[in-house]
Amino acid sequence: MPDLVGHAELDCIAIGATVLGTGGGGDPYIGKLWAQRRTDERGPVRLLPLEQVPDEALVVAVAMMGAPSVIVEKIPSGGELVVALRAVERAVGAEADALICIEAGGINSTIPFALAADLGLPVVDADGMGRAFPEVQMVSFAAHGLSATPMALADERGNVTVIECQSPEWAERLGRAIVSAEGGAAVIAQYPMRGVDLKRTAIAGTIGLAYEIGRTVLGAGRRMDSLLQALTTQLGAAVLFRGKVIELERLTEGGFLRGFLTIAGLGEQGRTSCSISFQNENLVASTEGEVLASVPDLITILEEESGHPVTTERLRFGMRVVVLAIPCAPLWRDSRGLAKAGPRCFGLDLDYVPFETRLGRRA
Amino acid sequence: MPDLVGHAELDCIAIGATVLGTGGGGDPYIGKLWAQRRTDERGPVRLLPLEQVPDEALVVAVAMMGAPSVIVEKIPSGGELVVALRAVERAVGAEADALICIEAGGINSTIPFALAADLGLPVVDADGMGRAFPEVQMVSFAAHGLSATPMALADERGNVTVIECQSPEWAERLGRAIVSAEGGAAVIAQYPMRGVDLKRTAIAGTIGLAYEIGRTVLGAGRRMDSLLQALTTQLGAAVLFRGKVIELERLTEGGFLRGFLTIAGLGEQGRTSCSISFQNENLVASTEGEVLASVPDLITILEEESGHPVTTERLRFGMRVVVLAIPCAPLWRDSRGLAKAGPRCFGLDLDYVPFETRLGRRA
Repeated sequence: MPDLVGHAELDCIAIGATVLGTGGGGDPYIGKLWAQRRTDERGPVRLLPLEQVPDEALVVAVAMMGAPSVIVEKIPSGGELVVALRAVERAVGAEADALICIEAGGINSTIPFALAADLGLPVVDADGMGRAFPEVQMVSFAAHGLSATPMALADERGNVTVIECQSPEWAERLGRAIVSAEGGAAVIAQYPMRGVDLKRTAIAGTIGLAYEIGRTVLGAGRRMDSLLQALTTQLGAAVLFRGKVIELERLTEGGFLRGFLTIAGLGEQGRTSCSISFQNENLVASTEGEVLASVPDLITILEEESGHPVTTERLRFGMRVVVLAIPCAPLWRDSRGLAKAGPRCFGLDLDYVPFETRLGRRA
Repeated sequence: MPDLVGHAELDCIAIGATVLGTGGGGDPYIGKLWAQRRTDERGPVRLLPLEQVPDEALVVAVAMMGAPSVIVEKIPSGGELVVALRAVERAVGAEADALICIEAGGINSTIPFALAADLGLPVVDADGMGRAFPEVQMVSFAAHGLSATPMALADERGNVTVIECQSPEWAERLGRAIVSAEGGAAVIAQYPMRGVDLKRTAIAGTIGLAYEIGRTVLGAGRRMDSLLQALTTQLGAAVLFRGKVIELERLTEGGFLRGFLTIAGLGEQGRTSCSISFQNENLVASTEGEVLASVPDLITILEEESGHPVTTERLRFGMRVVVLAIPCAPLWRDSRGLAKAGPRCFGLDLDYVPFETRLGRRA
């Protein structure tokens, strides 16, 4: 894990976080350019190990909320991030001592570094998911009973909204309504909390892990087989399918990007096709009616040509891809985690079974 | 104009404000019960003439926002009003010295008295419309360039949202999205301003006028002809149509109550039917394709049997009614007013012509 995050580290973090972003969390190219410009100008950002966060430190998560298809078109100027953070600080009555990523993703893992560079704050090496999820309440902090609010939203027109809710589910509902009215994406600052609470509820080491994954991806170059071998070892990942995108349906609505894709096999496998549904993030991968993996496990799509992860808004018809399953953080496999982010939280009529079990059963 | 507003004055104000509410602004029966309970317990509220508001006094408008069909089902406990007001006060950094009604209406002209009774504050004898309009920017304060924000919304679940926007139109858009997500109605506090600004932008004397109209309605009992004679004299009103509701379509969506009604004549007139469209408030009255009156002029429906005004959510099939046109406040007839609340602001392909001119042309 690097102590300081600057230009080179952001190259790795953006890509590694996109692997963990499981289709969501934003495009890594845009995310890294933005954060690199800020760290190039203002200097690298200190990465603070979770266990070193002081008990009394105020930590705030900053991110973009909305449909990734809109987020890539609406990258904020940076001013909105400051506005959103300051609004939460005013509501809390204290200044932030550190920032944190709410989730792993190409944009949402790099945004906090852009703001941290501007303000001279550290970023905590942790997040609230260890992956990306589409909704405000699908966060480890919420699974442990912490409040998402005061939560602030800011847009490029100068509109600022501060929400205080009795539940993270209401913060999602109101925040999504505001994001939709603002055109589908906005900057948010949320889950302000003290270090003592952060340390018992965060998913530790997500940024450092993203950095290592990014190094693996960049180090493998275009040697896909050695990349897959490395990710299997590093993450406990399994290859679910390899093939070509032959069907792709996407709809941006209500502040989400929803859809599905079908991948046709290239003949090396018994199975002929694999379908993946998504709500910002990939939700379920199945083949011929049989579920291979589902939320909260990670379903990540790599492009064969580059070895880089592909977000749902960047998928293209005809793209050759490899579909990976990666085990989620342990929290998501227990009852508290499944209550917030199990398959039924996405309206799926499906019980969660770890993908390792599903694949073992298949063998 | 009464100096103090208590139980008896609220009987009159609720009904008179509903005449001015032109179909919107909420049901007078519920509005008066609510405010009367508070003034019965806490004592009457001082009604402050607009010209007596000190220049430095902070005045805040409190109201319910949403579809009247939902508002009548979701009367707040009173706690939400305090929460919304306090949220605006915190955002402004000062305490309110007086409250004001944003519009005339059975609920929205009585809500400020309920809160004022609880907090021991006066209510200013003025409003922002001199009638009711459905949207946040359709307010004299906005027509004069003042900001609607900081604006706070509070609901019965403890959700509180504070909006700061660059325009009242954005406050409408974001506020409506929040209200819709909260089920169609919420309490709001908005347009915080100093007395010096209030005095140059408010519609003066609306509460006193509502009180006088209420006295007229209650005094007339069920003698409709003498009531119409009195309102013609008092308000410059004209009878547009008398008849029976034979068609009524209402849809509660997106935080509004939209629809239309058709009234069949009872044979005493040449015209056989009159149609009225509404968006919370009545927008256009026409007969056989000819417009009789439109926003921003007031179109008010009285029930024949009782002589009382009927709000859009209380209309019933078969109800016998009288349709009145009442001149709007002069502001709404000039370019600033028409830019905020002329027919085209409601998506109508119609130029505004004062109803007196329309009726004169018809003669």
